[in-house]
Amino acid sequence: MSNDSADKSGTDLPRIGRLLDAFEGHGIDALLVASPTNRRYLSGFTGSSANLLIAGERKLLITDGRYSTQAAAQAADYECVIHKGPLLDQVAASALELGATSLGFDPKLTTVAEFEALSMSLKPNCELVAVSGLIESLRLRKDEAEMDALRRAIAIGDAVMGAAEKAILPGAREIDVATTIEQEFRLAGASGPSFPVIVASGRNAAMPHHSPSDKAIEEGDSVVVDMGAMLDGYCSDMTRTFCAGEPTPTFEEIYGVVLEAQKAAINGVRDGLKAMDCDGLARGVITSAGYGDNFGHGTGHGVGLDIHEAPRVSSTSDDVLCVGMVHSVEPGIYLPDWGGVRIEDLVLVTENGSEILSQYPK
Amino acid sequence: MSNDSADKSGTDLPRIGRLLDAFEGHGIDALLVASPTNRRYLSGFTGSSANLLIAGERKLLITDGRYSTQAAAQAADYECVIHKGPLLDQVAASALELGATSLGFDPKLTTVAEFEALSMSLKPNCELVAVSGLIESLRLRKDEAEMDALRRAIAIGDAVMGAAEKAILPGAREIDVATTIEQEFRLAGASGPSFPVIVASGRNAAMPHHSPSDKAIEEGDSVVVDMGAMLDGYCSDMTRTFCAGEPTPTFEEIYGVVLEAQKAAINGVRDGLKAMDCDGLARGVITSAGYGDNFGHGTGHGVGLDIHEAPRVSSTSDDVLCVGMVHSVEPGIYLPDWGGVRIEDLVLVTENGSEILSQYPK
Repeated sequence: MSNDSADKSGTDLPRIGRLLDAFEGHGIDALLVASPTNRRYLSGFTGSSANLLIAGERKLLITDGRYSTQAAAQAADYECVIHKGPLLDQVAASALELGATSLGFDPKLTTVAEFEALSMSLKPNCELVAVSGLIESLRLRKDEAEMDALRRAIAIGDAVMGAAEKAILPGAREIDVATTIEQEFRLAGASGPSFPVIVASGRNAAMPHHSPSDKAIEEGDSVVVDMGAMLDGYCSDMTRTFCAGEPTPTFEEIYGVVLEAQKAAINGVRDGLKAMDCDGLARGVITSAGYGDNFGHGTGHGVGLDIHEAPRVSSTSDDVLCVGMVHSVEPGIYLPDWGGVRIEDLVLVTENGSEILSQYPK
Repeated sequence: MSNDSADKSGTDLPRIGRLLDAFEGHGIDALLVASPTNRRYLSGFTGSSANLLIAGERKLLITDGRYSTQAAAQAADYECVIHKGPLLDQVAASALELGATSLGFDPKLTTVAEFEALSMSLKPNCELVAVSGLIESLRLRKDEAEMDALRRAIAIGDAVMGAAEKAILPGAREIDVATTIEQEFRLAGASGPSFPVIVASGRNAAMPHHSPSDKAIEEGDSVVVDMGAMLDGYCSDMTRTFCAGEPTPTFEEIYGVVLEAQKAAINGVRDGLKAMDCDGLARGVITSAGYGDNFGHGTGHGVGLDIHEAPRVSSTSDDVLCVGMVHSVEPGIYLPDWGGVRIEDLVLVTENGSEILSQYPK
């Protein structure tokens, strides 16, 4: 029997338990949790401003007066502390009150100014200890509740890509297609897009992160659609590239290379594969076809509560793929005077290889 | 004759000129610009990942291969440097190449990890110098091109609030009203909402930052609608509170107090007023009416390229209102067992007082 209530709420004890287990190895007796997604992962709280302070049995959610009702509703197993002055002053006061002597903080998520303010307030009874990516490492392998949310977000992406493909007609503007996607996300129950929708046609498609413009789609344009839905805090992410009207010979050639590259990388995904080798599988196909210089980004990235999280699948990544990770595989070719093609799916690393989570035809 | 081309493009020389003038006072010969809005303000570049490095005549935009085409198009007067390894390694290499000896960085926008990586790479030829809010201080007073963009974004907000009010009927769900707002933003030419739209009805309205839910609006609910459009990078922000169906006596009482508080604060706005005194004008009315404990946030915040920027209009702010600033005035009263009322407009501080920029009736 699975424990659904624990999996789906902010009171997920296994997550906190695994976190506390890691304290000793890092030499800390308390941890400051500042990032919105990390605090949601642990507590369930979705407000825009708060810090968690975790010290063994004591778990504090420190936020301001706007969120007192919401904090009680979403994070019932946290003690809610409302700060009136600066947030970090209250964090320091609460840490001292809890008797913390070594407070872990993430140097990648803490600014120099925040570090200095905290450090000053904690002296001399408590020292700050740099601990990077502790919660992110818990988040690497998705648990059952997370996979459930991800699958539902991805299913919305599959359904909405169909509406996007229908909207891509010569004469339609990029922005019209983007608006259709956003509306369909809402109607399908998403809280919104998981990142700004990309619809890039013709030469605009040579820019991997182009913002939808007033440009009308023309016959023969390649049209890159890169979009994802946000559902219960989890992100989906998928890219398809269509040719408006009849596919041109250039489109067919480039599309064929990118699809082959994407399949090569997906087929290689397995527990224990170095992420840089996964990147190499896609990059090898594109380079062999003579387009190595036209693939200027990495092959993929992890997806979960954040649209970009670990692992990083690129030629310089030190990450290793492991069972339970979810990441994108999204090679592309970009030709400044023509346009571009990118094809992206999310995959789950499994014991036997991988499962392709997005279903839309390509 | 105004110089339109300079005002509207990333080549805006007055902005760079004012920035360089400030270098000497801070003891720096180069500045690292990392935040998306600051780099857009100076260069016009809108990509998601880049740093600017400014050293006198030399202006570098350091980004990755995804953005080479976009950088050339948007920031033609910057030298574009494409990094393949970590961004900050290239920033350090470029700073040394430019002969920088004192590189300014913003401790509020730089993480401890970034500081340590940069510092290591720059030693011993260049030191990092903490310089807070240099560009933000330039952005405090809006120039002509900025006011033009803001006014257009605000006009969209005015038009779309009408559609929102029409959609607020007993039986409609909060999420339906939010979707209507998002669609209308797009149709009106906005690039999207400037922050997640808030539609909060009944008891949900007691949460100032409630996310639109499946809850159906009921007869007699107070319904807080807080939303803004993003246009050319600039944000609008307006709140209105409606009563679904016939206004109830409680609604009328609370609404009357909030409106009086908002008018008192707006009427007080003038060049030289302490922001905390502006807050006090609104807070005084609400406290006198017996609801002081139910107004748990500040009275307002600056708006521009960021939805929240200086000045901060709160009881603990040290800011002083000055001609050319644009900020919100948005007092509210929140009763956990009933709901809430908030009324918000953007005002421009003028030589003679203020100009209310949003026009929607209240």
